[in-house]
Amino acid sequence: MEKILKQIAFIHEIDKLKYIQRKTRLFGSDRCENDAEHSWHLALMTIVLAEHSNVPIDVLKVLKMVLIHDIVEIDAGDIFLYDTQLNHTNTEAEHKAAERIFGLLPPEQAAELIEIWGEFETGLTAEAKFARSMDRLEPLLQNFSNKGGTWKTYDVGFEKVFDKKQAIKHGASDLWDFAQTILNESVERGYLRKTTE
Amino acid sequence: MEKILKQIAFIHEIDKLKYIQRKTRLFGSDRCENDAEHSWHLALMTIVLAEHSNVPIDVLKVLKMVLIHDIVEIDAGDIFLYDTQLNHTNTEAEHKAAERIFGLLPPEQAAELIEIWGEFETGLTAEAKFARSMDRLEPLLQNFSNKGGTWKTYDVGFEKVFDKKQAIKHGASDLWDFAQTILNESVERGYLRKTTE
Repeated sequence: MEKILKQIAFIHEIDKLKYIQRKTRLFGSDRCENDAEHSWHLALMTIVLAEHSNVPIDVLKVLKMVLIHDIVEIDAGDIFLYDTQLNHTNTEAEHKAAERIFGLLPPEQAAELIEIWGEFETGLTAEAKFARSMDRLEPLLQNFSNKGGTWKTYDVGFEKVFDKKQAIKHGASDLWDFAQTILNESVERGYLRKTTE
Repeated sequence: MEKILKQIAFIHEIDKLKYIQRKTRLFGSDRCENDAEHSWHLALMTIVLAEHSNVPIDVLKVLKMVLIHDIVEIDAGDIFLYDTQLNHTNTEAEHKAAERIFGLLPPEQAAELIEIWGEFETGLTAEAKFARSMDRLEPLLQNFSNKGGTWKTYDVGFEKVFDKKQAIKHGASDLWDFAQTILNESVERGYLRKTTE
Protein backbone atom coordinates (compact mmCIF):
# COMPACT_ATOMS: atom_id res chain seq x y z
CA MET A 1 0.00 0.00 0.00
CA GLU A 2 2.93 2.34 0.68
CA LYS A 3 4.05 1.81 -2.90
CA ILE A 4 0.60 2.63 -4.25
CA LEU A 5 0.50 5.83 -2.19
CA LYS A 6 3.76 7.01 -3.76
CA GLN A 7 2.48 6.19 -7.23
CA ILE A 8 -0.77 8.03 -6.55
CA ALA A 9 1.16 11.06 -5.26
CA PHE A 10 2.98 11.18 -8.62
CA ILE A 11 -0.26 10.73 -10.57
CA HIS A 12 -1.74 13.62 -8.60
CA GLU A 13 1.29 15.90 -9.07
CA ILE A 14 1.53 15.51 -12.84
CA ASP A 15 -2.00 16.86 -13.24
CA LYS A 16 -0.23 20.25 -13.24
CA LEU A 17 1.07 19.54 -16.76
CA LYS A 18 -2.43 20.43 -17.98
CA TYR A 19 -1.80 24.05 -16.95
CA ILE A 20 1.52 24.50 -18.76
CA GLN A 21 0.71 26.48 -21.89
CA ARG A 22 2.79 26.13 -25.02
CA LYS A 23 3.29 28.90 -27.56
CA THR A 24 1.83 26.82 -30.39
CA ARG A 25 -1.90 26.76 -30.97
CA LEU A 26 -4.26 23.89 -31.73
CA PHE A 27 -4.89 23.05 -35.39
CA GLY A 28 -6.74 25.90 -37.10
CA SER A 29 -7.31 27.60 -33.76
CA ASP A 30 -6.46 30.55 -31.53
CA ARG A 31 -6.34 28.37 -28.43
CA CYS A 32 -2.87 27.51 -27.09
CA GLU A 33 -2.06 23.87 -26.55
CA ASN A 34 -1.05 22.67 -23.10
CA ASP A 35 1.72 20.18 -22.38
CA ALA A 36 -0.60 17.27 -21.54
CA GLU A 37 -2.50 17.65 -24.82
CA HIS A 38 0.80 17.99 -26.68
CA SER A 39 2.20 14.83 -25.05
CA TRP A 40 -0.96 12.89 -25.90
CA HIS A 41 -0.73 14.01 -29.52
CA LEU A 42 2.93 12.98 -29.80
CA ALA A 43 1.98 9.55 -28.42
CA LEU A 44 -0.69 9.10 -31.10
CA MET A 45 1.74 10.30 -33.76
CA THR A 46 4.25 7.73 -32.51
CA ILE A 47 1.70 4.92 -32.79
CA VAL A 48 0.72 5.94 -36.30
CA LEU A 49 4.10 6.97 -37.71
CA ALA A 50 6.54 4.53 -36.04
CA GLU A 51 6.90 2.56 -39.27
CA HIS A 52 8.73 5.52 -40.81
CA SER A 53 11.58 5.40 -38.31
CA ASN A 54 14.97 5.17 -40.04
CA VAL A 55 15.79 2.13 -37.91
CA PRO A 56 13.65 -0.32 -35.90
CA ILE A 57 12.58 1.19 -32.57
CA ASP A 58 11.12 0.03 -29.28
CA VAL A 59 7.71 1.73 -29.61
CA LEU A 60 6.85 1.22 -25.93
CA LYS A 61 9.98 3.14 -24.94
CA VAL A 62 9.23 5.96 -27.38
CA LEU A 63 5.70 6.21 -25.98
CA LYS A 64 7.05 6.49 -22.44
CA MET A 65 9.45 9.19 -23.68
CA VAL A 66 6.93 11.39 -25.40
CA LEU A 67 4.39 10.95 -22.59
CA ILE A 68 6.86 12.13 -19.92
CA HIS A 69 9.21 14.39 -21.90
CA ASP A 70 7.65 17.67 -20.73
CA ILE A 71 6.83 16.75 -17.13
CA VAL A 72 9.87 18.72 -15.90
CA GLU A 73 8.15 21.86 -17.21
CA ILE A 74 5.81 21.67 -14.20
CA ASP A 75 8.71 23.22 -12.28
CA ALA A 76 10.94 24.58 -15.03
CA GLY A 77 8.32 26.07 -17.40
CA ASP A 78 8.00 25.81 -21.16
CA ILE A 79 10.82 27.35 -23.16
CA PHE A 80 10.02 28.36 -26.72
CA LEU A 81 12.01 26.46 -29.35
CA TYR A 82 13.17 29.70 -30.97
CA ASP A 83 13.96 31.51 -27.72
CA THR A 84 17.30 33.26 -28.20
CA GLN A 85 17.93 34.00 -24.52
CA LEU A 86 17.14 30.71 -22.82
CA ASN A 87 18.68 27.32 -23.43
CA HIS A 88 15.96 24.85 -24.29
CA THR A 89 17.38 21.55 -23.12
CA ASN A 90 19.23 20.07 -20.20
CA THR A 91 19.05 23.05 -17.93
CA GLU A 92 19.89 22.78 -14.26
CA ALA A 93 16.27 23.68 -13.46
CA GLU A 94 15.02 20.77 -15.57
CA HIS A 95 17.31 18.29 -13.85
CA LYS A 96 16.13 19.45 -10.44
CA ALA A 97 12.53 19.16 -11.61
CA ALA A 98 13.11 15.60 -12.83
CA GLU A 99 14.58 14.62 -9.47
CA ARG A 100 11.71 16.17 -7.55
CA ILE A 101 8.75 15.02 -9.65
CA PHE A 102 9.86 11.52 -10.71
CA GLY A 103 11.29 11.23 -7.19
CA LEU A 104 7.74 11.02 -5.86
CA LEU A 105 7.60 7.48 -7.27
CA PRO A 106 9.07 4.34 -5.66
CA PRO A 107 12.90 4.49 -6.21
CA GLU A 108 13.13 1.97 -9.07
CA GLN A 109 10.38 3.64 -11.08
CA ALA A 110 11.85 7.07 -10.41
CA ALA A 111 15.23 5.89 -11.69
CA GLU A 112 13.67 4.35 -14.81
CA LEU A 113 11.72 7.45 -15.78
CA ILE A 114 14.60 9.83 -15.03
CA GLU A 115 16.77 7.70 -17.30
CA ILE A 116 14.21 7.69 -20.11
CA TRP A 117 13.77 11.46 -19.77
CA GLY A 118 17.56 11.91 -19.88
CA GLU A 119 17.77 9.71 -22.95
CA PHE A 120 15.22 11.91 -24.71
CA GLU A 121 17.10 15.07 -23.75
CA THR A 122 20.45 13.71 -24.89
CA GLY A 123 18.89 12.55 -28.14
CA LEU A 124 21.43 9.94 -29.17
CA THR A 125 19.48 6.67 -29.27
CA ALA A 126 17.14 5.58 -32.07
CA GLU A 127 14.17 5.96 -29.72
CA ALA A 128 15.18 9.46 -28.64
CA LYS A 129 15.74 10.51 -32.25
CA PHE A 130 12.29 9.32 -33.28
CA ALA A 131 10.63 10.92 -30.23
CA ARG A 132 12.33 14.21 -31.08
CA SER A 133 11.09 13.92 -34.67
CA MET A 134 7.55 13.78 -33.33
CA ASP A 135 8.21 16.77 -31.07
CA ARG A 136 9.37 18.82 -34.06
CA LEU A 137 6.70 17.64 -36.50
CA GLU A 138 3.58 18.43 -34.45
CA PRO A 139 4.12 22.25 -34.19
CA LEU A 140 5.10 22.35 -37.87
CA LEU A 141 1.70 20.88 -38.75
CA GLN A 142 -0.01 23.24 -36.32
CA ASN A 143 1.72 26.33 -37.66
CA PHE A 144 0.88 25.34 -41.24
CA SER A 145 -2.78 24.88 -40.28
CA ASN A 146 -2.68 28.29 -38.58
CA LYS A 147 -1.29 30.04 -41.67
CA GLY A 148 2.05 30.67 -40.00
CA GLY A 149 1.16 30.45 -36.29
CA THR A 150 4.17 31.09 -34.06
CA TRP A 151 6.41 31.67 -37.09
CA LYS A 152 4.41 34.80 -37.78
CA THR A 153 3.68 35.80 -34.18
CA TYR A 154 7.37 35.70 -33.25
CA ASP A 155 8.72 36.56 -36.71
CA VAL A 156 10.84 33.46 -37.15
CA GLY A 157 12.27 33.05 -40.66
CA PHE A 158 12.50 30.02 -42.94
CA GLU A 159 16.23 29.37 -42.37
CA LYS A 160 15.86 29.16 -38.60
CA VAL A 161 12.79 26.92 -38.84
CA PHE A 162 14.47 24.71 -41.46
CA ASP A 163 17.52 24.39 -39.21
CA LYS A 164 15.53 23.36 -36.13
CA LYS A 165 13.21 21.01 -38.03
CA GLN A 166 16.12 19.02 -39.46
CA ALA A 167 15.96 16.96 -36.28
CA ILE A 168 13.06 15.18 -38.01
CA LYS A 169 15.53 13.74 -40.54
CA HIS A 170 17.55 11.99 -37.83
CA GLY A 171 14.44 10.07 -36.69
CA ALA A 172 12.57 9.53 -39.94
CA SER A 173 13.91 10.71 -43.29
CA ASP A 174 10.56 9.97 -45.03
CA LEU A 175 8.83 12.34 -42.65
CA TRP A 176 11.55 14.93 -43.22
CA ASP A 177 10.83 14.78 -46.96
CA PHE A 178 7.17 15.39 -46.15
CA ALA A 179 8.08 18.18 -43.69
CA GLN A 180 10.11 19.94 -46.37
CA THR A 181 7.14 20.01 -48.74
CA ILE A 182 5.12 21.66 -45.96
CA LEU A 183 7.89 24.19 -45.30
CA ASN A 184 8.20 25.05 -48.98
CA GLU A 185 4.44 25.33 -49.31
CA SER A 186 4.45 27.61 -46.26
CA VAL A 187 6.91 29.95 -47.97
CA GLU A 188 4.85 29.95 -51.17
CA ARG A 189 1.66 30.77 -49.30
CA GLY A 190 3.35 33.53 -47.30
CA TYR A 191 3.08 31.74 -43.94
CA LEU A 192 6.86 31.73 -43.53
CA ARG A 193 9.30 34.37 -44.83
CA LYS A 194 12.66 33.66 -46.44
CA THR A 195 15.05 36.20 -44.93
CA THR A 196 17.51 35.92 -47.81
CA GLU A 197 14.95 36.85 -50.44
CA MET B 1 3.86 9.68 -49.60
CA GLU B 2 0.19 8.76 -50.05
CA LYS B 3 0.41 6.71 -46.87
CA ILE B 4 1.93 9.60 -44.95
CA LEU B 5 -0.83 11.92 -46.15
CA LYS B 6 -3.48 9.58 -44.76
CA GLN B 7 -1.65 9.33 -41.46
CA ILE B 8 -1.32 13.11 -41.26
CA ALA B 9 -5.04 13.52 -42.02
CA PHE B 10 -5.78 11.32 -39.00
CA ILE B 11 -3.29 13.22 -36.82
CA HIS B 12 -4.99 16.45 -37.84
CA GLU B 13 -8.52 15.15 -37.22
CA ILE B 14 -7.89 13.84 -33.71
CA ASP B 15 -6.86 17.32 -32.57
CA LYS B 16 -10.61 17.74 -31.98
CA LEU B 17 -10.38 15.48 -28.93
CA LYS B 18 -8.89 18.48 -27.09
CA TYR B 19 -12.28 20.20 -27.31
CA ILE B 20 -14.36 17.34 -25.87
CA GLN B 21 -15.10 18.33 -22.28
CA ARG B 22 -15.64 15.72 -19.61
CA LYS B 23 -17.83 16.22 -16.57
CA THR B 24 -14.97 15.60 -14.16
CA ARG B 25 -12.68 18.42 -13.14
CA LEU B 26 -8.90 18.56 -12.81
CA PHE B 27 -7.40 17.74 -9.40
CA GLY B 28 -8.40 20.37 -6.86
CA SER B 29 -9.85 22.55 -9.59
CA ASP B 30 -12.99 24.02 -11.13
CA ARG B 31 -11.70 23.46 -14.66
CA CYS B 32 -13.20 20.52 -16.58
CA GLU B 33 -10.81 18.01 -18.08
CA ASN B 34 -10.85 17.37 -21.80
CA ASP B 35 -10.56 13.96 -23.43
CA ALA B 36 -6.98 14.44 -24.66
CA GLU B 37 -5.77 15.38 -21.16
CA HIS B 38 -7.74 12.48 -19.72
CA SER B 39 -6.22 10.02 -22.19
CA TRP B 40 -2.70 11.29 -21.45
CA HIS B 41 -3.30 10.87 -17.73
CA LEU B 42 -4.56 7.28 -18.15
CA ALA B 43 -1.43 6.50 -20.18
CA LEU B 44 0.82 7.77 -17.38
CA MET B 45 -1.23 5.82 -14.83
CA THR B 46 -0.78 2.71 -16.97
CA ILE B 47 3.00 3.16 -17.05
CA VAL B 48 3.18 3.67 -13.31
CA LEU B 49 0.56 1.17 -12.12
CA ALA B 50 0.89 -1.71 -14.61
CA GLU B 51 2.67 -3.87 -12.02
CA HIS B 52 -0.60 -4.07 -10.05
CA SER B 53 -2.46 -5.83 -12.84
CA ASN B 54 -4.03 -9.09 -11.65
CA VAL B 55 -2.35 -10.89 -14.53
CA PRO B 56 0.62 -10.04 -16.78
CA ILE B 57 -0.36 -7.57 -19.50
CA ASP B 58 1.00 -6.24 -22.76
CA VAL B 59 1.67 -2.66 -21.62
CA LEU B 60 2.10 -1.35 -25.18
CA LYS B 61 -1.37 -2.58 -26.06
CA VAL B 62 -2.89 -1.03 -22.94
CA LEU B 63 -1.21 2.27 -23.79
CA LYS B 64 -2.67 2.19 -27.29
CA MET B 65 -6.08 1.44 -25.77
CA VAL B 66 -6.16 4.27 -23.27
CA LEU B 67 -4.68 6.73 -25.76
CA ILE B 68 -7.39 6.03 -28.37
CA HIS B 69 -10.33 4.90 -26.20
CA ASP B 70 -12.21 8.22 -26.35
CA ILE B 71 -11.44 9.24 -29.94
CA VAL B 72 -14.94 8.16 -31.03
CA GLU B 73 -16.29 10.95 -28.82
CA ILE B 74 -15.15 13.45 -31.46
CA ASP B 75 -18.32 12.43 -33.30
CA ALA B 76 -20.37 10.72 -30.60
CA GLY B 77 -19.73 13.07 -27.66
CA ASP B 78 -18.88 12.30 -24.04
CA ILE B 79 -21.53 10.39 -22.11
CA PHE B 80 -21.43 10.73 -18.33
CA LEU B 81 -20.74 7.46 -16.49
CA TYR B 82 -23.82 7.91 -14.31
CA ASP B 83 -26.13 9.05 -17.09
CA THR B 84 -29.43 7.22 -16.62
CA GLN B 85 -30.84 7.99 -20.07
CA LEU B 86 -27.95 7.23 -22.38
CA ASN B 87 -26.04 4.01 -22.79
CA HIS B 88 -22.37 4.64 -22.24
CA THR B 89 -20.70 1.98 -24.33
CA ASN B 90 -20.93 0.37 -27.72
CA THR B 91 -23.52 2.68 -29.18
CA GLU B 92 -24.24 2.74 -32.87
CA ALA B 93 -22.95 6.31 -32.99
CA GLU B 94 -19.63 5.23 -31.49
CA HIS B 95 -19.19 2.44 -34.03
CA LYS B 96 -19.86 4.83 -36.89
CA ALA B 97 -17.38 7.28 -35.39
CA ALA B 98 -14.70 4.59 -35.13
CA GLU B 99 -15.20 3.68 -38.79
CA ARG B 100 -15.00 7.29 -39.92
CA ILE B 101 -12.11 8.54 -37.79
CA PHE B 102 -9.80 5.48 -37.75
CA GLY B 103 -10.83 5.00 -41.38
CA LEU B 104 -8.78 8.07 -42.28
CA LEU B 105 -5.68 5.91 -41.75
CA PRO B 106 -4.22 3.41 -44.23
CA PRO B 107 -6.48 0.29 -44.14
CA GLU B 108 -4.24 -1.95 -42.02
CA GLN B 109 -3.74 0.66 -39.34
CA ALA B 110 -7.42 1.54 -39.35
CA ALA B 111 -8.29 -2.14 -38.82
CA GLU B 112 -5.76 -2.48 -35.98
CA LEU B 113 -6.99 0.56 -34.07
CA ILE B 114 -10.67 -0.28 -34.57
CA GLU B 115 -9.94 -3.74 -33.18
CA ILE B 116 -8.10 -2.35 -30.14
CA TRP B 117 -10.90 0.14 -29.52
CA GLY B 118 -13.47 -2.68 -29.78
CA GLU B 119 -11.44 -4.79 -27.38
CA PHE B 120 -11.50 -1.96 -24.84
CA GLU B 121 -15.24 -1.52 -25.25
CA THR B 122 -15.97 -5.23 -24.88
CA GLY B 123 -13.73 -5.36 -21.83
CA LEU B 124 -12.97 -9.09 -21.79
CA THR B 125 -9.20 -9.34 -22.24
CA ALA B 126 -6.63 -8.71 -19.50
CA GLU B 127 -5.48 -5.56 -21.31
CA ALA B 128 -9.01 -4.20 -21.62
CA LYS B 129 -9.75 -4.94 -17.97
CA PHE B 130 -6.65 -3.07 -16.85
CA ALA B 131 -7.35 -0.13 -19.19
CA ARG B 132 -10.88 0.10 -17.78
CA SER B 133 -9.47 0.10 -14.25
CA MET B 134 -7.46 3.18 -15.13
CA ASP B 135 -10.53 4.81 -16.69
CA ARG B 136 -12.48 4.28 -13.45
CA LEU B 137 -9.68 5.21 -11.06
CA GLU B 138 -8.75 8.63 -12.46
CA PRO B 139 -12.15 10.34 -11.87
CA LEU B 140 -12.35 8.74 -8.42
CA LEU B 141 -9.07 10.45 -7.49
CA GLN B 142 -10.27 13.69 -9.08
CA ASN B 143 -13.61 13.68 -7.25
CA PHE B 144 -11.88 12.95 -3.95
CA SER B 145 -9.48 15.87 -4.52
CA ASN B 146 -12.50 18.07 -5.35
CA LYS B 147 -14.32 17.16 -2.13
CA GLY B 148 -16.98 15.24 -4.00
CA GLY B 149 -16.75 16.69 -7.50
CA THR B 150 -19.29 15.17 -9.88
CA TRP B 151 -20.70 12.94 -7.11
CA LYS B 152 -21.96 16.12 -5.44
CA THR B 153 -22.78 18.10 -8.58
CA TYR B 154 -24.96 15.31 -9.96
CA ASP B 155 -26.03 13.87 -6.59
CA VAL B 156 -24.71 10.37 -7.17
CA GLY B 157 -24.78 8.16 -4.04
CA PHE B 158 -22.18 5.77 -2.61
CA GLU B 159 -23.90 2.57 -3.78
CA LYS B 160 -24.00 3.64 -7.42
CA VAL B 161 -20.39 4.82 -7.34
CA PHE B 162 -19.26 1.65 -5.56
CA ASP B 163 -21.05 -0.45 -8.16
CA LYS B 164 -19.45 1.33 -11.13
CA LYS B 165 -15.99 1.44 -9.57
CA GLN B 166 -15.89 -2.32 -9.04
CA ALA B 167 -14.55 -2.55 -12.58
CA ILE B 168 -11.22 -1.61 -10.97
CA LYS B 169 -11.19 -4.99 -9.20
CA HIS B 170 -11.28 -6.90 -12.48
CA GLY B 171 -8.09 -5.19 -13.63
CA ALA B 172 -6.15 -4.77 -10.40
CA SER B 173 -7.46 -6.00 -7.06
CA ASP B 174 -4.71 -4.11 -5.15
CA LEU B 175 -5.90 -0.87 -6.67
CA TRP B 176 -9.48 -1.79 -5.84
CA ASP B 177 -8.48 -2.16 -2.18
CA PHE B 178 -6.95 1.29 -2.36
CA ALA B 179 -10.01 2.68 -4.16
CA GLN B 180 -12.28 1.38 -1.42
CA THR B 181 -10.32 3.23 1.24
CA ILE B 182 -10.80 6.41 -0.80
CA LEU B 183 -14.53 5.74 -1.17
CA ASN B 184 -14.95 5.08 2.55
CA GLU B 185 -12.95 8.17 3.41
CA SER B 186 -15.14 10.13 1.00
CA VAL B 187 -18.25 9.03 2.90
CA GLU B 188 -16.65 9.93 6.25
CA ARG B 189 -15.69 13.37 5.03
CA GLY B 190 -19.12 14.00 3.55
CA TYR B 191 -17.94 14.04 -0.08
CA LEU B 192 -20.21 11.09 -0.95
CA ARG B 193 -23.58 10.28 0.65
CA LYS B 194 -24.73 6.81 1.60
CA THR B 195 -28.36 6.65 0.47
CA THR B 196 -29.21 3.86 2.91
CA GLU B 197 -28.06 5.85 5.94
